[in-house]
Amino acid sequence: MYDWKDIIEELNKGKTFMLYPHVNVDGDGAGSCLALARMLSEMGKECRIYLGDELPAYLSFLDCPFFVMDPLGFSAEVAIAVDCGEDGRLPGRLDTFMATPVRLCIDHHIKTKPFDVKHIMNDPHASACGMMILDLFRAMGRTPSKEEAEALYVAIITDTGCFKYSNTTAETHAAIAELYGCGIDHSRLCNMLYENKPFPKIKLEAEIIKRARFFAGGKACLSYATQEMLDMCGAVPGHSEGCVDILRSIEGVEIAIFIKQQQDGNYRASMRAKDYADVAAVALPLGGGGHVRAAGCSFSCGLDEVIDILVPAVEAELARHTDI
Amino acid sequence: MYDWKDIIEELNKGKTFMLYPHVNVDGDGAGSCLALARMLSEMGKECRIYLGDELPAYLSFLDCPFFVMDPLGFSAEVAIAVDCGEDGRLPGRLDTFMATPVRLCIDHHIKTKPFDVKHIMNDPHASACGMMILDLFRAMGRTPSKEEAEALYVAIITDTGCFKYSNTTAETHAAIAELYGCGIDHSRLCNMLYENKPFPKIKLEAEIIKRARFFAGGKACLSYATQEMLDMCGAVPGHSEGCVDILRSIEGVEIAIFIKQQQDGNYRASMRAKDYADVAAVALPLGGGGHVRAAGCSFSCGLDEVIDILVPAVEAELARHTDI
Repeated sequence: MYDWKDIIEELNKGKTFMLYPHVNVDGDGAGSCLALARMLSEMGKECRIYLGDELPAYLSFLDCPFFVMDPLGFSAEVAIAVDCGEDGRLPGRLDTFMATPVRLCIDHHIKTKPFDVKHIMNDPHASACGMMILDLFRAMGRTPSKEEAEALYVAIITDTGCFKYSNTTAETHAAIAELYGCGIDHSRLCNMLYENKPFPKIKLEAEIIKRARFFAGGKACLSYATQEMLDMCGAVPGHSEGCVDILRSIEGVEIAIFIKQQQDGNYRASMRAKDYADVAAVALPLGGGGHVRAAGCSFSCGLDEVIDILVPAVEAELARHTDI
Repeated sequence: MYDWKDIIEELNKGKTFMLYPHVNVDGDGAGSCLALARMLSEMGKECRIYLGDELPAYLSFLDCPFFVMDPLGFSAEVAIAVDCGEDGRLPGRLDTFMATPVRLCIDHHIKTKPFDVKHIMNDPHASACGMMILDLFRAMGRTPSKEEAEALYVAIITDTGCFKYSNTTAETHAAIAELYGCGIDHSRLCNMLYENKPFPKIKLEAEIIKRARFFAGGKACLSYATQEMLDMCGAVPGHSEGCVDILRSIEGVEIAIFIKQQQDGNYRASMRAKDYADVAAVALPLGGGGHVRAAGCSFSCGLDEVIDILVPAVEAELARHTDI
């Protein structure tokens, strides 16, 4: 489906590869990298997945020696940004990335900034980067192994919210049917992903719900998690993953905003739209990015100030749709 | 895939049809009946879907004149039990069903009892009855309309727990890809089904999580909702539906217990097992009932006493599985 010629040439030519998922790695970033790393490894290449942060607990079952937090002197000829399309999402790793002779990018986010790489494959219509990696397998004439297919399944099911999000298409379901054919154990994966929640995470979710506030006539819902709340619940940063979706699932809510304090004390907001609003239009002018129905941005100010910036921006976006 | 010859003959021959989903109608029963009713209607037949109870709130968006709670003198030549394979699941409607000259059955439950019908199509391996109805469309050379495909989508996504349950197969996903081709608006349907939660329900869930307590080394988790908690959250009794599943989804939990105060002040406990425990074995000696992984029982004593009865009973059940 895509024209992979240039990228395949680099995959065949290179001997050592370093894959870079975006910071705050999620199921799509980790799963896409893992499938690609396994494929490269089978091709006789040396490969690492250089993480910007630890795998979140709900993905820890994917952990394996490909994932590193420190390259420990491993120097790659080819760097591939996977599920990551801009400098800003490689904090702490950008120097290593830029120092690599051949840089490639495979990504499905909306491209807003130039990215200094040799070849780029970007499809913002792909429901997950894992869909693109599966297409790369096809283009290379390779059938994913069970392990590769399971990594791609994790990538796709997490980035489509269990196939519920608007980014899900007939192709998504056809791809999943194809992955079943590779022998995946989807029950085991779903138990790991969805029936294995650490209690501190559930407690944190309850605290976040308690603090939910509504505005724009109930069309917007905002909540947050501070480091203090995380500590109180015994939660780790990955535990707030998915909280924005709980807020979005509330009756009448069109835009959900979840603000999370980062370990450096700053805040990051995740936004989700349900049906018609464009949260990328809210995030982009604030220096953030993302998709129409899922976007985010970072702030270096206090929580009250973040809320004071976001509330009118979200109200303005909702006001554009008064006909609905 | 199935041999529909006998059933198709009856569909072509009959002029008036009444469809019977099982009592406590769910997404599969309602969606399968609706798709079939629309198809029969397009064939020029008169058709009703005779419900044993009202459509639950989360399915109310499917409501249309096919659904009736009272046939009001409508007498059908052909009765079809859909997603329902035994007498016991037609309380209040069995006489009408049995009085119909031609009785058919299309169902995917495990058959344990005889069912007095002319033709039966039963496949316990089908992930939803909706999968079988889609196959009937194919066998009749009919492409589902958008409305029919949407009804089938609701049937399949609800009975497979968003494609997470072990009954999901490659065929399930291939069928969904086919339904996308019929023009379904899956985002709208998923929003109606999953993104439309009353805030009082979510608030109640948070309160229930706050009160969760663990025992048996973390293998059992218990929580409760009193009438006072319901009032505090502005919740109605139906809002605690699914709370026991939240408790079950916690890491390490094998048995989840959710105790709910009834409107008469008494308590009812719902229990769920995740993997290996038998909660029917806990409920039965206490005068309750259910299945191995989902059971319940009622009490006419105070909450503390209920807990004092249940904790040792659950501990004893878990102690039977110390080899795990």
